[in-house]
Amino acid sequence: MVAVRSPATLAPLQPLLYEDLVRAALREDLGRAGDLTSDAIIPDDLRATARLVARQEGRIAGLDVFAAAFRLLDGRLDVRLRHRDGLDAAAGTVLAEVRGPARSMLSAERVALNFLGRMCGIAGAARDMAAAAAPFGARIVCTRKTTPLLRALEKYAVRAGGAQNHRFGLDDAILIKDNHRHVAGGVAPAVARARAYAGHLVRIEVEVETLDQVEEALALGVDVLLLDNMDLDTLRRAAALAKGRALTEASGGIRPDTVATVAATGVDLISAGWLTHSAPVLDVALDIAIDSPEAWV
Amino acid sequence: MVAVRSPATLAPLQPLLYEDLVRAALREDLGRAGDLTSDAIIPDDLRATARLVARQEGRIAGLDVFAAAFRLLDGRLDVRLRHRDGLDAAAGTVLAEVRGPARSMLSAERVALNFLGRMCGIAGAARDMAAAAAPFGARIVCTRKTTPLLRALEKYAVRAGGAQNHRFGLDDAILIKDNHRHVAGGVAPAVARARAYAGHLVRIEVEVETLDQVEEALALGVDVLLLDNMDLDTLRRAAALAKGRALTEASGGIRPDTVATVAATGVDLISAGWLTHSAPVLDVALDIAIDSPEAWV
Amino acid sequence: MVAVRSPATLAPLQPLLYEDLVRAALREDLGRAGDLTSDAIIPDDLRATARLVARQEGRIAGLDVFAAAFRLLDGRLDVRLRHRDGLDAAAGTVLAEVRGPARSMLSAERVALNFLGRMCGIAGAARDMAAAAAPFGARIVCTRKTTPLLRALEKYAVRAGGAQNHRFGLDDAILIKDNHRHVAGGVAPAVARARAYAGHLVRIEVEVETLDQVEEALALGVDVLLLDNMDLDTLRRAAALAKGRALTEASGGIRPDTVATVAATGVDLISAGWLTHSAPVLDVALDIAIDSPEAWV
Amino acid sequence: MVAVRSPATLAPLQPLLYEDLVRAALREDLGRAGDLTSDAIIPDDLRATARLVARQEGRIAGLDVFAAAFRLLDGRLDVRLRHRDGLDAAAGTVLAEVRGPARSMLSAERVALNFLGRMCGIAGAARDMAAAAAPFGARIVCTRKTTPLLRALEKYAVRAGGAQNHRFGLDDAILIKDNHRHVAGGVAPAVARARAYAGHLVRIEVEVETLDQVEEALALGVDVLLLDNMDLDTLRRAAALAKGRALTEASGGIRPDTVATVAATGVDLISAGWLTHSAPVLDVALDIAIDSPEAWV
Amino acid sequence: MVAVRSPATLAPLQPLLYEDLVRAALREDLGRAGDLTSDAIIPDDLRATARLVARQEGRIAGLDVFAAAFRLLDGRLDVRLRHRDGLDAAAGTVLAEVRGPARSMLSAERVALNFLGRMCGIAGAARDMAAAAAPFGARIVCTRKTTPLLRALEKYAVRAGGAQNHRFGLDDAILIKDNHRHVAGGVAPAVARARAYAGHLVRIEVEVETLDQVEEALALGVDVLLLDNMDLDTLRRAAALAKGRALTEASGGIRPDTVATVAATGVDLISAGWLTHSAPVLDVALDIAIDSPEAWV
Amino acid sequence: MVAVRSPATLAPLQPLLYEDLVRAALREDLGRAGDLTSDAIIPDDLRATARLVARQEGRIAGLDVFAAAFRLLDGRLDVRLRHRDGLDAAAGTVLAEVRGPARSMLSAERVALNFLGRMCGIAGAARDMAAAAAPFGARIVCTRKTTPLLRALEKYAVRAGGAQNHRFGLDDAILIKDNHRHVAGGVAPAVARARAYAGHLVRIEVEVETLDQVEEALALGVDVLLLDNMDLDTLRRAAALAKGRALTEASGGIRPDTVATVAATGVDLISAGWLTHSAPVLDVALDIAIDSPEAWV
Repeated sequence: MVAVRSPATLAPLQPLLYEDLVRAALREDLGRAGDLTSDAIIPDDLRATARLVARQEGRIAGLDVFAAAFRLLDGRLDVRLRHRDGLDAAAGTVLAEVRGPARSMLSAERVALNFLGRMCGIAGAARDMAAAAAPFGARIVCTRKTTPLLRALEKYAVRAGGAQNHRFGLDDAILIKDNHRHVAGGVAPAVARARAYAGHLVRIEVEVETLDQVEEALALGVDVLLLDNMDLDTLRRAAALAKGRALTEASGGIRPDTVATVAATGVDLISAGWLTHSAPVLDVALDIAIDSPEAWV
Repeated sequence: MVAVRSPATLAPLQPLLYEDLVRAALREDLGRAGDLTSDAIIPDDLRATARLVARQEGRIAGLDVFAAAFRLLDGRLDVRLRHRDGLDAAAGTVLAEVRGPARSMLSAERVALNFLGRMCGIAGAARDMAAAAAPFGARIVCTRKTTPLLRALEKYAVRAGGAQNHRFGLDDAILIKDNHRHVAGGVAPAVARARAYAGHLVRIEVEVETLDQVEEALALGVDVLLLDNMDLDTLRRAAALAKGRALTEASGGIRPDTVATVAATGVDLISAGWLTHSAPVLDVALDIAIDSPEAWV
Repeated sequence: MVAVRSPATLAPLQPLLYEDLVRAALREDLGRAGDLTSDAIIPDDLRATARLVARQEGRIAGLDVFAAAFRLLDGRLDVRLRHRDGLDAAAGTVLAEVRGPARSMLSAERVALNFLGRMCGIAGAARDMAAAAAPFGARIVCTRKTTPLLRALEKYAVRAGGAQNHRFGLDDAILIKDNHRHVAGGVAPAVARARAYAGHLVRIEVEVETLDQVEEALALGVDVLLLDNMDLDTLRRAAALAKGRALTEASGGIRPDTVATVAATGVDLISAGWLTHSAPVLDVALDIAIDSPEAWV
Repeated sequence: MVAVRSPATLAPLQPLLYEDLVRAALREDLGRAGDLTSDAIIPDDLRATARLVARQEGRIAGLDVFAAAFRLLDGRLDVRLRHRDGLDAAAGTVLAEVRGPARSMLSAERVALNFLGRMCGIAGAARDMAAAAAPFGARIVCTRKTTPLLRALEKYAVRAGGAQNHRFGLDDAILIKDNHRHVAGGVAPAVARARAYAGHLVRIEVEVETLDQVEEALALGVDVLLLDNMDLDTLRRAAALAKGRALTEASGGIRPDTVATVAATGVDLISAGWLTHSAPVLDVALDIAIDSPEAWV
Repeated sequence: MVAVRSPATLAPLQPLLYEDLVRAALREDLGRAGDLTSDAIIPDDLRATARLVARQEGRIAGLDVFAAAFRLLDGRLDVRLRHRDGLDAAAGTVLAEVRGPARSMLSAERVALNFLGRMCGIAGAARDMAAAAAPFGARIVCTRKTTPLLRALEKYAVRAGGAQNHRFGLDDAILIKDNHRHVAGGVAPAVARARAYAGHLVRIEVEVETLDQVEEALALGVDVLLLDNMDLDTLRRAAALAKGRALTEASGGIRPDTVATVAATGVDLISAGWLTHSAPVLDVALDIAIDSPEAWV
Repeated sequence: MVAVRSPATLAPLQPLLYEDLVRAALREDLGRAGDLTSDAIIPDDLRATARLVARQEGRIAGLDVFAAAFRLLDGRLDVRLRHRDGLDAAAGTVLAEVRGPARSMLSAERVALNFLGRMCGIAGAARDMAAAAAPFGARIVCTRKTTPLLRALEKYAVRAGGAQNHRFGLDDAILIKDNHRHVAGGVAPAVARARAYAGHLVRIEVEVETLDQVEEALALGVDVLLLDNMDLDTLRRAAALAKGRALTEASGGIRPDTVATVAATGVDLISAGWLTHSAPVLDVALDIAIDSPEAWV
């Protein structure tokens, strides 16, 4: 049985972390003149009810962001969630209901769905990869290959899918890559410089390319070894060497169909940029029922 | 032979339209403390040279944005473009060279590639769809299903791929959808309201679901008919009816492998949200050569 | 009888399109220290009631923006509208009532009136021009000669006056002017380039200077002809030639007293920068009654 | 002879005070897609030369802001000023020359002129009012009835016209109006509260309605008396009473044709909201000569 | 008895003047991922009650800002003030109570306290200095040596302490310092230039170094004399010369233990940068009681 | 001998991390009207040379920020650094030279010094505390008790002083405090939840109050123990227990005069909020020599 993280451990994002993004996205869509079509055709006083429906099976993430798009455009729009982030939804599941002025509802619809579809897409991809890796005891982690400006949302979606987050940016952990190692003149001096520079709460991960470097890094007591683009056999040996002494992370071109093979090498973590840069969106849609229009001359 | 738009007609975006995005993306990655690893390990005075390489064949878009990421982080970083947006690049092509301080180069690398890979991915997808549609005289257009805040960049990438842009937002054209038609009480009153509201430079497109509605809309002289989720036979008939009287646009779940079939129905335009919400990124990478480190105690 | 657009077709602007402007204007007036005078003299707990009065006859536009200035400064200020945008008001008409803390009311007053007076001024000017043009079947349109940063509000005021909007910016229609024509080498190549570049929802307007160019543009099927600074006789001929084939728009130094003469030439549209750059404000004022001050030592 | 302030005492505004406004105005005009027409028609490598010309006689203000619009859109645009703010220009005067890429020049033109025309309009109105008041020894001052967000620019234009600035906002001086006086229970307690509250560098002006109040305020040693909407005879008496003891400021519906009459009453200052809310723009234009287009397929 | 300003004359700051600062400070602390610890450990539905307590005796300032930090992070957090700005609080005094979701309360706590502790520290220092100066009839004023971006809050804290504000910035009064005097060629020409430039509501203060300059400035009728770094004897003579003709302000290295000596010289004002750049914070803390955790699997 | 970090390991902050702060601080000081005094008195074409001098001995931090204040106000101001961040300076040391337009130099001076004085003050305090702790092998770390919005600069200043940074915010490490432990029901379940939630690069620190909790936490393998407000004897025992198994951090009311005593207990780290919330500024000043004024009428 696969031990994917349950939604009970998925804390909602503080709205302060995404509301400005949602406002900016609404303004991007409204432009300078607003929703010409709805303004022209939908009377001011018309109300509507809508149901947010998953058109495909998937893992849900982003319902709060979806709701914020309506609320921030027009405070009279009321969104009731019928589902929870971090849970799966079958095709046809009603995820939320929206009520309020028809015109504003139509004007906010696309932005709300653009956020939600993308976040669910990532959550579903994370879920599937996590499920493929779990039987081997490996966990999936995302990377910094996220959509510019959406990192917090995408990392949240990864968590909603039951995978884990790698660094949020350049400043919350040390990751020594080949260029750093080259400049420092080897793994040992690079790690020494990192330790002298970073505070006591900063973990250190080191990219290694050979088994010799694996040994060298283990001897230095680094926290994590990044095994980038290693072949499966080398991965297997590196994981065996490191077991119990440091975590190992495999990376490099990981896609849904290669996860299990890599996980089988015994690595602890598998990082996949694909999750955030190329996972297809989930098909979510808003079924809107507008109240009978009043006489409108 | 396929008449894909040549790069000569692809005007570069004004930097004012994307520089704030790039700055925000750099800040998102730098966080509060900046690049801990490079700050710890790379000396101040070390310089590097890098080559931007396409790891896969693809259509290029976003080189100016790529360059801006380096320039806006550190004005001493000099980026020389070796390729042009709107042109194809074989795997292995050097697209640009970057020179300057090694530390800043490493700090800007990921953000620069995140923008470029995404934009090239969209451009390539647009190119491929355009090529599939062109033999039938149909053109590909994008939708408003873009990444929040990146619409201008993604629409540009679509143009770089040789496809066309649909509306940039809710305010630059009228698009009467089923809800609008329903509220107005039919195609005719909806179009009348739209014409009374919109200025003389606003085009009107109407979503139609039946051939009767096609006839009704054509009689009203609308500019474009949106044929959403019609079966191929109905598409064919609608296109035939409209030929010479209005443009026809097919939409609904279009993906690379269905473009040609839809194009063969004779429609003028095929719109595909897939282009901007689900096209995979192009694999681009920066090969960095750091100068020999100076003596550094 | 003049068929000026009724307020039923004037959709209110989404607050997201102007609230940041109003906040910025309040901050511009409050500076760093706030309203020194009211802070010094008006006790915290004093309440006031105010009536917004039109001191002159005019067309009203901007009541929501007026209200936002109070609401955004102090959420306890309650504004009740007693009139509607797009309707005329006789001198002395009460347009709204404001209730709440006296200190904040005084602090927001000037900003609220600065927005409203300007918007009503534009709406009234648009109304008067539209009335002058209507007997000849011509419509008035505004231009891009708007106050920097206030374009959306000023274009809205133009609509409230019963006139129409031209382009909202450089990106929502093609307008080929003399320089473009010159560079392209004539009307035909310029139009060809524009068509190749723009999407299917972008209208094309062409500035023409001679009757030959009118003919040339009509033959190309452009949507609108811009007749800039033509004498009345040429305007008349151009309008006659274009009738039924393209819309005609007269422009160039149009002011309230020249509208009718130009409209009589038979053009469809008359554009007037004067509306937004030089129309005088409407005199609107806030009559404030502050509750009897409490004993205040 | 009229002693209008010479340009030698007109310090240029620090760019930090207006560059963000100019950027925002450019973005307002570019929208999401930029200048469709110029992007479609003007080749990348075409250069142009332009002359900024005053089409009417006027007082010039805002040349630096005009130049910033070009520079901030495209750093390759070079603006050479041929005139100075604060000086008059005859019709036909060349005020500046612009050189650089034709496409960007066309894209920035309207925004640059929108700022300049408005600022020159205000400067000219200020000059004319100042000239009308000067023979009587009175000075013209502006008010807080400025265009939202443009206050710093408009106050500068007033100075360029040879008039003076009143308060920049609610926080840089005390202005006790009728509501404040009413709440405090008279002029004396209002002034006492103001003095207790404000720092030692804050001047106090008091609005008075009767000659008794003039006497009361003078006895309190206030700096300035605001004589709002007084008839000419009362103005004369108030000015005589205050001479040498406090400055007097007449206000209320002042327009160009009433300035001299009011100035003749002997008041020191005349404030006119008209200057900034209703002065018509100066007609300024850019004559652009685009280099011969290169062969462009 | 010392006549320190009572809280009745301390008007609260308009929230528009600080809410963006508070939001920015919350985002600075939340980073990209939010409060990892509380998100991991505190269940969604847990509520808490907290008491804000002064750990030391002090003067209170900033309770509204403290409350805003909670409200702006999570609107469900309810803050009830139990004390007022401008009043003293003994050690142990409960200043406010906070109720609501435990997780958000913990996430906002540090930011709320960072603002409050700093503002109370300044208020207390101002109170103590004001008390030392009051017996001699001198008042304490702050300077422009404030923390970047916090000037409005720190100047408010100074007022809450019973001291007064000097200039809020470079634009709300004239302060002629030695460099200005040098460039102008003396006190008299400097004052003349200032008067010609500034509006009628701008006060003029002049820094003088010698008694001759004191005489010169007094003869010119300037409003305030700045006596910078003068020895006590010269201060005494300058104060005597100026008494009744202009205000005198002593400045230069004033600290709590030197205030009384300087005040004894008879100057009217004593300005102290120390108040805002070096006053230690007040120790304030939040005692949080979290409701019994629910069963949480 | 004390092993304080040498400046070689102090990487400069990326300007993107502070330039917006500096611009905002300049605007805060310029207000709406700019530097009235310098604008009135200092001619446009006057140039000046200035030397930045340390008036007291201290540790220097913030020279780049100081320079940015001049550069961002007026690009013609040229700042040459004569000293380096992270090094000590004797009283009288010239730290930098500034050349360029006198008016802008005077306008930027105060903002530049406000940043620099504060940063040097923190750096010096950090240096002194670090020196007191070093003989005992303990390191000094800062806290999240920083000035709102200046955290990145203040943490940098701490590094320049030779101390270390604790968390930059709530999102870059787990710090389990008493409330978290209480909610979770003990140290063990709290740590378990944290490990389940956080990624593999997140360190975990736990606040403990008793020696039993120290044992419990050590058994769980946490990275760091926070020993808050423990008496010296308990600190000593806790440090002894943890030696070699986890880092220990003492905190609670640490001030310069208590550092050594705490360090002597054998803890690894000592955290001090005092460093950033109460360290007095360093006295730095700008000695300006303005060129002889030109003839100026």
